[in-house]
Amino acid sequence: MMPLIRPKHFFRVAGHDEGFMPLNAFDHALLQAGIGDTNLVRMSSILPPHATEITPITLPAGALIPVAYAAVESSTPGETIAAAVAVAIPKDHSLPGLIMEHHGVGTAEEIEKTVRLMGQKGFEHRKRELLEIRSISSEHTVIKNGACFAGIVLWDNA
Amino acid sequence: MMPLIRPKHFFRVAGHDEGFMPLNAFDHALLQAGIGDTNLVRMSSILPPHATEITPITLPAGALIPVAYAAVESSTPGETIAAAVAVAIPKDHSLPGLIMEHHGVGTAEEIEKTVRLMGQKGFEHRKRELLEIRSISSEHTVIKNGACFAGIVLWDNA
Amino acid sequence: MMPLIRPKHFFRVAGHDEGFMPLNAFDHALLQAGIGDTNLVRMSSILPPHATEITPITLPAGALIPVAYAAVESSTPGETIAAAVAVAIPKDHSLPGLIMEHHGVGTAEEIEKTVRLMGQKGFEHRKRELLEIRSISSEHTVIKNGACFAGIVLWDNA
Repeated sequence: MMPLIRPKHFFRVAGHDEGFMPLNAFDHALLQAGIGDTNLVRMSSILPPHATEITPITLPAGALIPVAYAAVESSTPGETIAAAVAVAIPKDHSLPGLIMEHHGVGTAEEIEKTVRLMGQKGFEHRKRELLEIRSISSEHTVIKNGACFAGIVLWDNA
Repeated sequence: MMPLIRPKHFFRVAGHDEGFMPLNAFDHALLQAGIGDTNLVRMSSILPPHATEITPITLPAGALIPVAYAAVESSTPGETIAAAVAVAIPKDHSLPGLIMEHHGVGTAEEIEKTVRLMGQKGFEHRKRELLEIRSISSEHTVIKNGACFAGIVLWDNA
Repeated sequence: MMPLIRPKHFFRVAGHDEGFMPLNAFDHALLQAGIGDTNLVRMSSILPPHATEITPITLPAGALIPVAYAAVESSTPGETIAAAVAVAIPKDHSLPGLIMEHHGVGTAEEIEKTVRLMGQKGFEHRKRELLEIRSISSEHTVIKNGACFAGIVLWDNA
Protein backbone atom coordinates (compact mmCIF):
# COMPACT_ATOMS: atom_id res chain seq x y z
CA MET A 1 0.00 0.00 0.00
CA MET A 2 1.23 3.46 -0.88
CA PRO A 3 0.16 6.12 1.60
CA LEU A 4 -1.05 9.30 -0.09
CA ILE A 5 1.19 11.98 1.34
CA ARG A 6 0.05 15.59 0.98
CA PRO A 7 1.49 17.65 3.83
CA LYS A 8 -0.67 20.43 5.23
CA HIS A 9 2.05 22.77 6.48
CA PHE A 10 5.36 24.21 5.38
CA PHE A 11 8.14 26.33 6.74
CA ARG A 12 11.15 28.17 5.32
CA VAL A 13 14.73 27.59 6.45
CA ALA A 14 18.18 28.69 5.32
CA GLY A 15 21.74 28.38 6.54
CA HIS A 16 25.38 28.51 5.50
CA ASP A 17 28.71 27.42 6.92
CA GLU A 18 32.22 26.12 6.39
CA GLY A 19 33.37 22.52 6.83
CA PHE A 20 36.22 20.03 6.60
CA MET A 21 34.93 18.77 3.24
CA PRO A 22 32.11 20.17 1.05
CA LEU A 23 29.65 17.61 2.46
CA ASN A 24 30.61 18.66 6.00
CA ALA A 25 29.91 22.27 5.00
CA PHE A 26 26.50 21.18 3.69
CA ASP A 27 25.82 19.27 6.93
CA HIS A 28 26.78 22.34 8.99
CA ALA A 29 24.56 24.57 6.83
CA LEU A 30 21.63 22.24 7.60
CA LEU A 31 22.38 22.46 11.31
CA GLN A 32 22.59 26.24 11.05
CA ALA A 33 19.22 26.18 9.22
CA GLY A 34 17.72 24.29 12.15
CA ILE A 35 17.00 21.07 10.24
CA GLY A 36 20.26 19.21 10.84
CA ASP A 37 20.06 15.68 12.19
CA THR A 38 17.12 14.79 9.92
CA ASN A 39 16.94 12.75 6.73
CA LEU A 40 16.00 15.09 3.91
CA VAL A 41 14.18 13.48 1.01
CA ARG A 42 14.40 15.86 -1.92
CA MET A 43 11.36 16.41 -4.08
CA SER A 44 10.19 18.61 -6.92
CA SER A 45 8.53 21.25 -5.95
CA ILE A 46 4.86 21.89 -5.32
CA LEU A 47 3.04 23.36 -2.36
CA PRO A 48 0.03 21.11 -1.68
CA PRO A 49 -3.40 22.78 -1.80
CA HIS A 50 -4.50 24.36 1.49
CA ALA A 51 -0.98 24.09 2.96
CA THR A 52 -0.25 26.86 5.43
CA GLU A 53 3.01 28.30 6.69
CA ILE A 54 4.11 27.64 10.24
CA THR A 55 7.11 28.89 12.19
CA PRO A 56 10.00 26.44 11.91
CA ILE A 57 9.71 23.56 14.33
CA THR A 58 12.29 21.17 15.73
CA LEU A 59 11.94 18.09 13.54
CA PRO A 60 12.19 14.59 15.02
CA ALA A 61 15.85 13.51 14.80
CA GLY A 62 16.50 10.99 12.04
CA ALA A 63 13.00 11.20 10.53
CA LEU A 64 12.50 11.23 6.75
CA ILE A 65 11.41 14.75 5.82
CA PRO A 66 10.21 15.85 2.36
CA VAL A 67 11.88 19.10 1.35
CA ALA A 68 12.38 21.19 -1.77
CA TYR A 69 15.72 22.89 -1.60
CA ALA A 70 18.51 24.80 -3.27
CA ALA A 71 22.10 24.13 -2.22
CA VAL A 72 25.51 25.19 -3.44
CA GLU A 73 29.01 24.29 -2.36
CA SER A 74 32.29 25.98 -3.27
CA SER A 75 35.94 25.38 -2.49
CA THR A 76 37.14 28.64 -4.07
CA PRO A 77 38.39 30.92 -1.27
CA GLY A 78 36.86 34.40 -1.40
CA GLU A 79 33.98 33.38 -3.67
CA THR A 80 30.50 34.49 -2.60
CA ILE A 81 27.78 31.91 -3.15
CA ALA A 82 24.06 31.94 -2.40
CA ALA A 83 21.02 29.66 -2.38
CA ALA A 84 17.37 30.69 -2.38
CA VAL A 85 13.89 29.21 -2.58
CA ALA A 86 10.57 30.88 -3.30
CA VAL A 87 6.99 29.72 -2.78
CA ALA A 88 4.37 31.15 -5.08
CA ILE A 89 1.06 31.04 -3.22
CA PRO A 90 -2.22 31.07 -5.15
CA LYS A 91 -5.18 33.33 -4.41
CA ASP A 92 -7.36 30.23 -4.53
CA HIS A 93 -6.04 28.03 -1.72
CA SER A 94 -7.68 24.94 -3.20
CA LEU A 95 -5.03 25.11 -5.94
CA PRO A 96 -1.39 24.06 -5.49
CA GLY A 97 1.44 26.54 -5.08
CA LEU A 98 4.83 26.36 -6.74
CA ILE A 99 8.26 26.10 -5.12
CA MET A 100 11.29 27.27 -7.08
CA GLU A 101 14.98 26.81 -6.25
CA HIS A 102 18.02 28.73 -7.43
CA HIS A 103 21.65 28.89 -6.44
CA GLY A 104 24.98 30.08 -7.78
CA VAL A 105 27.90 32.45 -7.46
CA GLY A 106 26.44 35.77 -6.36
CA THR A 107 24.79 37.51 -3.46
CA ALA A 108 21.67 36.34 -1.66
CA GLU A 109 19.91 39.46 -2.94
CA GLU A 110 20.63 38.57 -6.59
CA ILE A 111 19.80 34.87 -6.26
CA GLU A 112 16.64 35.51 -4.24
CA LYS A 113 15.45 38.10 -6.76
CA THR A 114 15.81 35.55 -9.55
CA VAL A 115 14.09 32.72 -7.68
CA ARG A 116 11.12 34.97 -6.89
CA LEU A 117 10.83 35.82 -10.58
CA MET A 118 10.99 32.09 -11.40
CA GLY A 119 8.00 31.51 -9.11
CA GLN A 120 6.11 34.39 -10.70
CA LYS A 121 6.83 33.08 -14.23
CA GLY A 122 5.63 29.61 -13.21
CA PHE A 123 2.29 31.07 -12.15
CA GLU A 124 2.00 33.15 -15.33
CA HIS A 125 2.60 29.99 -17.35
CA ARG A 126 -0.19 28.23 -15.43
CA LYS A 127 -2.47 31.30 -15.74
CA ARG A 128 -2.96 30.92 -11.99
CA GLU A 129 -3.70 33.98 -9.90
CA LEU A 130 -0.88 34.79 -7.52
CA LEU A 131 -1.53 35.91 -3.96
CA GLU A 132 2.10 36.47 -3.03
CA ILE A 133 5.61 35.08 -3.17
CA ARG A 134 7.48 34.18 0.00
CA SER A 135 11.20 33.45 -0.15
CA ILE A 136 14.32 32.83 1.89
CA SER A 137 18.02 32.77 1.07
CA SER A 138 21.49 32.35 2.47
CA GLU A 139 24.86 33.72 1.38
CA HIS A 140 28.39 32.65 2.18
CA THR A 141 31.86 33.90 1.34
CA VAL A 142 34.12 30.87 1.15
CA ILE A 143 37.14 30.44 3.41
CA LYS A 144 38.05 26.84 2.50
CA ASN A 145 34.91 24.76 1.84
CA GLY A 146 31.61 26.59 2.07
CA ALA A 147 27.97 25.70 1.52
CA CYS A 148 24.66 27.52 1.35
CA PHE A 149 21.25 25.94 1.80
CA ALA A 150 17.69 27.23 1.49
CA GLY A 151 14.64 25.01 1.67
CA ILE A 152 10.91 24.63 2.03
CA VAL A 153 10.12 21.85 4.49
CA LEU A 154 6.77 20.10 4.13
CA TRP A 155 5.20 18.91 7.33
CA ASP A 156 1.76 17.90 8.51
CA ASN A 157 1.93 16.82 12.12
CA ALA A 158 2.04 20.36 13.50
CA MET B 1 7.07 2.56 11.60
CA MET B 2 8.17 2.41 8.01
CA PRO B 3 5.37 1.52 5.60
CA LEU B 4 6.41 -1.04 3.01
CA ILE B 5 5.71 0.68 -0.28
CA ARG B 6 5.48 -1.50 -3.38
CA PRO B 7 3.21 0.18 -5.92
CA LYS B 8 1.01 -2.08 -8.05
CA HIS B 9 0.65 0.10 -11.13
CA PHE B 10 2.72 2.26 -13.40
CA PHE B 11 2.30 4.62 -16.30
CA ARG B 12 4.56 6.30 -18.83
CA VAL B 13 4.77 10.06 -19.36
CA ALA B 14 6.95 12.45 -21.34
CA GLY B 15 7.04 16.14 -22.14
CA HIS B 16 9.25 19.01 -23.24
CA ASP B 17 9.10 22.78 -23.22
CA GLU B 18 10.88 26.12 -22.96
CA GLY B 19 11.03 28.33 -19.86
CA PHE B 20 12.33 31.53 -18.28
CA MET B 21 15.10 29.59 -16.51
CA PRO B 22 16.13 25.92 -16.94
CA LEU B 23 14.10 24.93 -13.85
CA ASN B 24 11.06 26.68 -15.32
CA ALA B 25 11.57 24.69 -18.52
CA PHE B 26 11.69 21.50 -16.44
CA ASP B 27 8.51 22.55 -14.59
CA HIS B 28 6.76 23.21 -17.92
CA ALA B 29 7.92 19.85 -19.29
CA LEU B 30 6.31 18.16 -16.26
CA LEU B 31 3.06 20.04 -16.90
CA GLN B 32 3.19 19.05 -20.55
CA ALA B 33 3.76 15.43 -19.46
CA GLY B 34 0.59 15.61 -17.36
CA ILE B 35 2.30 15.24 -13.97
CA GLY B 36 2.95 18.90 -13.16
CA ASP B 37 1.78 20.20 -9.81
CA THR B 38 2.95 17.06 -7.98
CA ASN B 39 5.99 16.40 -5.81
CA LEU B 40 8.19 13.92 -7.62
CA VAL B 41 10.38 11.76 -5.41
CA ARG B 42 13.09 10.30 -7.59
CA MET B 43 14.04 6.66 -7.12
CA SER B 44 16.19 4.04 -8.74
CA SER B 45 14.59 2.12 -10.84
CA ILE B 46 12.73 -1.13 -10.45
CA LEU B 47 9.26 -2.18 -11.49
CA PRO B 48 7.69 -4.00 -8.52
CA PRO B 49 6.55 -7.59 -9.14
CA HIS B 50 3.01 -7.91 -10.51
CA ALA B 51 2.85 -4.19 -11.33
CA THR B 52 0.63 -3.49 -14.33
CA GLU B 53 0.50 -0.55 -16.69
CA ILE B 54 -2.44 1.83 -16.58
CA THR B 55 -3.29 4.82 -18.74
CA PRO B 56 -1.93 8.02 -17.21
CA ILE B 57 -4.16 9.42 -14.49
CA THR B 58 -4.47 12.89 -13.01
CA LEU B 59 -2.39 12.71 -9.86
CA PRO B 60 -3.51 14.44 -6.66
CA ALA B 61 -2.01 17.95 -6.65
CA GLY B 62 0.93 18.31 -4.29
CA ALA B 63 1.13 14.61 -3.41
CA LEU B 64 4.52 12.87 -3.08
CA ILE B 65 4.85 10.58 -6.08
CA PRO B 66 7.64 8.01 -6.62
CA VAL B 67 8.98 8.22 -10.14
CA ALA B 68 11.99 6.99 -12.11
CA TYR B 69 12.89 9.55 -14.71
CA ALA B 70 15.31 10.94 -17.24
CA ALA B 71 15.59 14.70 -17.68
CA VAL B 72 17.85 17.03 -19.61
CA GLU B 73 18.07 20.80 -19.82
CA SER B 74 19.94 22.95 -22.33
CA SER B 75 20.50 26.65 -22.82
CA THR B 76 22.24 26.24 -26.21
CA PRO B 77 19.92 27.68 -28.90
CA GLY B 78 19.35 25.25 -31.77
CA GLU B 79 20.54 22.21 -29.86
CA THR B 80 18.31 19.13 -29.98
CA ILE B 81 18.02 17.24 -26.69
CA ALA B 82 16.05 14.16 -25.71
CA ALA B 83 15.09 12.11 -22.65
CA ALA B 84 13.81 8.54 -22.60
CA VAL B 85 12.88 5.77 -20.18
CA ALA B 86 12.33 2.09 -20.79
CA VAL B 87 10.69 -0.61 -18.69
CA ALA B 88 11.89 -4.16 -19.18
CA ILE B 89 9.01 -6.46 -18.25
CA PRO B 90 9.71 -10.07 -17.21
CA LYS B 91 7.88 -13.10 -18.57
CA ASP B 92 7.41 -14.22 -14.98
CA HIS B 93 5.33 -11.45 -13.41
CA SER B 94 6.31 -12.52 -9.91
CA LEU B 95 9.77 -11.13 -10.67
CA PRO B 96 10.65 -7.44 -10.73
CA GLY B 97 11.10 -5.47 -13.94
CA LEU B 98 13.83 -2.94 -14.65
CA ILE B 99 13.49 0.76 -15.45
CA MET B 100 16.30 2.47 -17.35
CA GLU B 101 16.81 6.19 -18.00
CA HIS B 102 18.85 7.96 -20.64
CA HIS B 103 19.17 11.53 -21.90
CA GLY B 104 21.49 13.69 -23.90
CA VAL B 105 22.07 15.74 -27.00
CA GLY B 106 20.39 13.85 -29.83
CA THR B 107 17.03 12.84 -31.19
CA ALA B 108 14.32 11.01 -29.28
CA GLU B 109 14.78 8.10 -31.67
CA GLU B 110 18.49 7.76 -30.84
CA ILE B 111 18.08 8.20 -27.07
CA GLU B 112 15.08 5.86 -26.90
CA LYS B 113 16.90 3.19 -28.90
CA THR B 114 19.78 3.31 -26.41
CA VAL B 115 17.57 3.20 -23.32
CA ARG B 116 15.70 0.17 -24.66
CA LEU B 117 19.02 -1.59 -25.19
CA MET B 118 20.02 -0.65 -21.63
CA GLY B 119 16.90 -2.40 -20.35
CA GLN B 120 17.60 -5.45 -22.48
CA LYS B 121 21.21 -5.63 -21.25
CA GLY B 122 20.01 -5.36 -17.63
CA PHE B 123 17.81 -8.41 -18.12
CA GLU B 124 20.60 -10.35 -19.86
CA HIS B 125 22.86 -9.58 -16.88
CA ARG B 126 20.18 -10.93 -14.52
CA LYS B 127 19.55 -13.96 -16.78
CA ARG B 128 15.88 -13.01 -16.49
CA GLU B 129 13.52 -13.85 -19.33
CA LEU B 130 12.20 -10.74 -21.04
CA LEU B 131 8.59 -10.44 -22.12
CA GLU B 132 8.93 -7.03 -23.75
CA ILE B 133 10.32 -3.54 -23.41
CA ARG B 134 8.03 -0.50 -23.25
CA SER B 135 9.47 2.98 -23.60
CA ILE B 136 8.65 6.65 -24.00
CA SER B 137 10.68 9.69 -24.96
CA SER B 138 10.57 13.40 -25.64
CA GLU B 139 12.69 15.64 -27.84
CA HIS B 140 13.21 19.39 -27.88
CA THR B 141 15.11 21.86 -30.01
CA VAL B 142 16.20 24.67 -27.76
CA ILE B 143 15.13 28.28 -28.33
CA LYS B 144 16.49 29.81 -25.10
CA ASN B 145 16.13 27.38 -22.16
CA GLY B 146 14.70 23.98 -23.00
CA ALA B 147 14.02 20.78 -21.07
CA CYS B 148 12.95 17.23 -21.85
CA PHE B 149 11.43 14.79 -19.39
CA ALA B 150 10.44 11.12 -19.59
CA GLY B 151 9.34 9.10 -16.62
CA ILE B 152 7.75 5.99 -15.19
CA VAL B 153 5.31 6.92 -12.44
CA LEU B 154 4.58 4.29 -9.79
CA TRP B 155 1.08 4.32 -8.38
CA ASP B 156 -1.14 1.94 -6.51
CA ASN B 157 -4.41 3.62 -5.72
CA ALA B 158 -5.83 3.12 -9.22
CA MET C 1 -1.44 12.13 6.44
CA MET C 2 2.31 11.97 6.52
CA PRO C 3 3.64 8.88 8.30
CA LEU C 4 6.55 9.66 10.61
CA ILE C 5 9.31 7.42 9.33
CA ARG C 6 12.26 6.79 11.65
CA PRO C 7 13.78 3.41 10.84
CA LYS C 8 15.11 1.36 13.74
CA HIS C 9 17.80 -0.65 11.93
CA PHE C 10 20.52 -0.17 9.37
CA PHE C 11 22.99 -2.22 7.41
CA ARG C 12 26.06 -1.53 5.29
CA VAL C 13 26.44 -2.61 1.67
CA ALA C 14 28.93 -2.00 -1.14
CA GLY C 15 29.52 -3.26 -4.66
CA HIS C 16 31.18 -2.47 -7.97
CA ASP C 17 30.92 -3.67 -11.55
CA GLU C 18 31.12 -2.96 -15.27
CA GLY C 19 28.17 -2.41 -17.59
CA PHE C 20 26.98 -1.62 -21.10
CA MET C 21 26.37 2.03 -20.15
CA PRO C 22 27.29 3.85 -16.90
CA LEU C 23 23.74 3.36 -15.54
CA ASN C 24 24.01 -0.36 -16.27
CA ALA C 25 27.28 -0.42 -14.32
CA PHE C 26 25.51 1.30 -11.42
CA ASP C 27 22.65 -1.22 -11.62
CA HIS C 28 25.13 -4.10 -11.58
CA ALA C 29 26.99 -2.57 -8.62
CA LEU C 30 23.68 -2.49 -6.70
CA LEU C 31 23.07 -6.16 -7.53
CA GLN C 32 26.59 -6.99 -6.43
CA ALA C 33 25.93 -5.08 -3.19
CA GLY C 34 22.88 -7.26 -2.58
CA ILE C 35 20.29 -4.48 -2.90
CA GLY C 36 19.58 -4.66 -6.62
CA ASP C 37 15.97 -4.94 -7.71
CA THR C 38 14.80 -2.36 -5.14
CA ASN C 39 13.82 1.28 -5.48
CA LEU C 40 16.41 3.34 -3.65
CA VAL C 41 15.19 6.67 -2.33
CA ARG C 42 18.23 8.79 -1.57
CA MET C 43 18.28 10.83 1.60
CA SER C 44 20.67 12.98 3.60
CA SER C 45 22.18 11.36 6.00
CA ILE C 46 21.34 10.77 9.62
CA LEU C 47 21.18 7.59 11.68
CA PRO C 48 17.95 7.74 13.70
CA PRO C 49 18.31 7.54 17.49
CA HIS C 50 18.37 3.98 18.87
CA ALA C 51 18.94 2.48 15.40
CA THR C 52 20.97 -0.71 15.54
CA GLU C 53 23.00 -2.48 12.90
CA ILE C 54 21.78 -5.75 11.45
CA THR C 55 23.37 -8.09 8.95
CA PRO C 56 22.24 -7.27 5.41
CA ILE C 57 18.86 -8.76 4.57
CA THR C 58 17.20 -9.52 1.26
CA LEU C 59 14.95 -6.55 0.67
CA PRO C 60 11.48 -6.97 -0.87
CA ALA C 61 11.82 -6.61 -4.65
CA GLY C 62 10.58 -3.29 -5.96
CA ALA C 63 10.01 -1.73 -2.52
CA LEU C 64 10.94 1.90 -1.84
CA ILE C 65 13.99 1.84 0.42
CA PRO C 66 15.57 4.87 2.13
CA VAL C 67 19.32 4.83 1.73
CA ALA C 68 22.25 7.20 2.16
CA TYR C 69 24.87 6.39 -0.42
CA ALA C 70 28.00 7.30 -2.31
CA ALA C 71 28.34 6.34 -5.96
CA VAL C 72 30.81 7.03 -8.73
CA GLU C 73 30.90 6.08 -12.40
CA SER C 74 33.79 6.29 -14.84
CA SER C 75 34.27 5.56 -18.52
CA THR C 76 38.05 6.07 -18.44
CA PRO C 77 39.72 2.68 -18.98
CA GLY C 78 42.33 1.89 -16.35
CA GLU C 79 41.09 4.48 -13.88
CA THR C 80 40.60 3.32 -10.29
CA ILE C 81 37.50 4.72 -8.59
CA ALA C 82 36.05 4.17 -5.15
CA ALA C 83 32.96 4.94 -3.07
CA ALA C 84 32.63 4.82 0.72
CA VAL C 85 30.18 5.61 3.49
CA ALA C 86 30.75 5.97 7.22
CA VAL C 87 28.35 5.97 10.16
CA ALA C 88 29.38 7.90 13.23
CA ILE C 89 27.64 6.30 16.20
CA PRO C 90 27.07 8.30 19.41
CA LYS C 91 27.87 7.08 22.90
CA ASP C 92 24.39 8.18 23.91
CA HIS C 93 22.08 6.07 21.76
CA SER C 94 19.17 8.44 22.31
CA LEU C 95 21.00 10.89 20.05
CA PRO C 96 21.19 10.60 16.26
CA GLY C 97 24.26 9.35 14.41
CA LEU C 98 25.73 10.83 11.26
CA ILE C 99 26.21 9.20 7.87
CA MET C 100 28.85 10.59 5.53
CA GLU C 101 29.46 9.75 1.86
CA HIS C 102 32.56 10.17 -0.28
CA HIS C 103 33.68 9.02 -3.70
CA GLY C 104 36.24 9.80 -6.34
CA VAL C 105 39.25 8.68 -8.28
CA GLY C 106 41.41 6.75 -5.85
CA THR C 107 41.59 3.56 -3.86
CA ALA C 108 38.96 2.30 -1.45
CA GLU C 109 41.51 2.73 1.35
CA GLU C 110 42.00 6.44 0.57
CA ILE C 111 38.31 7.22 0.06
CA GLU C 112 37.23 5.27 3.15
CA LYS C 113 39.87 6.98 5.30
CA THR C 114 38.50 10.38 4.23
CA VAL C 115 34.86 9.48 4.79
CA ARG C 116 35.62 8.21 8.30
CA LEU C 117 37.34 11.52 9.06
CA MET C 118 34.29 13.36 7.69
CA GLY C 119 32.10 11.48 10.17
CA GLN C 120 34.49 12.28 13.03
CA LYS C 121 34.57 15.98 12.09
CA GLY C 122 30.77 16.06 11.97
CA PHE C 123 30.62 14.78 15.55
CA GLU C 124 33.30 17.24 16.70
CA HIS C 125 31.24 20.06 15.17
CA ARG C 126 28.18 18.85 17.09
CA LYS C 127 30.24 18.38 20.30
CA ARG C 128 28.65 14.92 20.41
CA GLU C 129 30.54 12.07 22.05
CA LEU C 130 31.56 9.43 19.55
CA LEU C 131 31.31 5.73 20.35
CA GLU C 132 32.79 4.52 17.06
CA ILE C 133 32.79 4.88 13.30
CA ARG C 134 31.71 2.01 11.06
CA SER C 135 32.36 2.19 7.33
CA ILE C 136 32.28 0.27 4.08
CA SER C 137 33.73 0.90 0.63
CA SER C 138 34.16 -0.50 -2.85
CA GLU C 139 36.85 0.00 -5.47
CA HIS C 140 36.86 -0.63 -9.20
CA THR C 141 39.40 -0.34 -11.99
CA VAL C 142 37.51 0.59 -15.13
CA ILE C 143 37.52 -1.60 -18.23
CA LYS C 144 34.88 0.27 -20.26
CA ASN C 145 32.13 1.65 -18.01
CA GLY C 146 32.57 1.07 -14.29
CA ALA C 147 30.69 2.02 -11.16
CA CYS C 148 31.22 1.81 -7.40
CA PHE C 149 28.52 2.00 -4.77
CA ALA C 150 28.55 2.09 -0.97
CA GLY C 151 25.47 2.70 1.13
CA ILE C 152 23.75 2.65 4.48
CA VAL C 153 20.29 1.13 4.14
CA LEU C 154 17.68 2.12 6.72
CA TRP C 155 15.16 -0.52 7.60
CA ASP C 156 12.75 -1.20 10.41
CA ASN C 157 10.80 -4.34 9.70
CA ALA C 158 13.60 -6.67 10.77
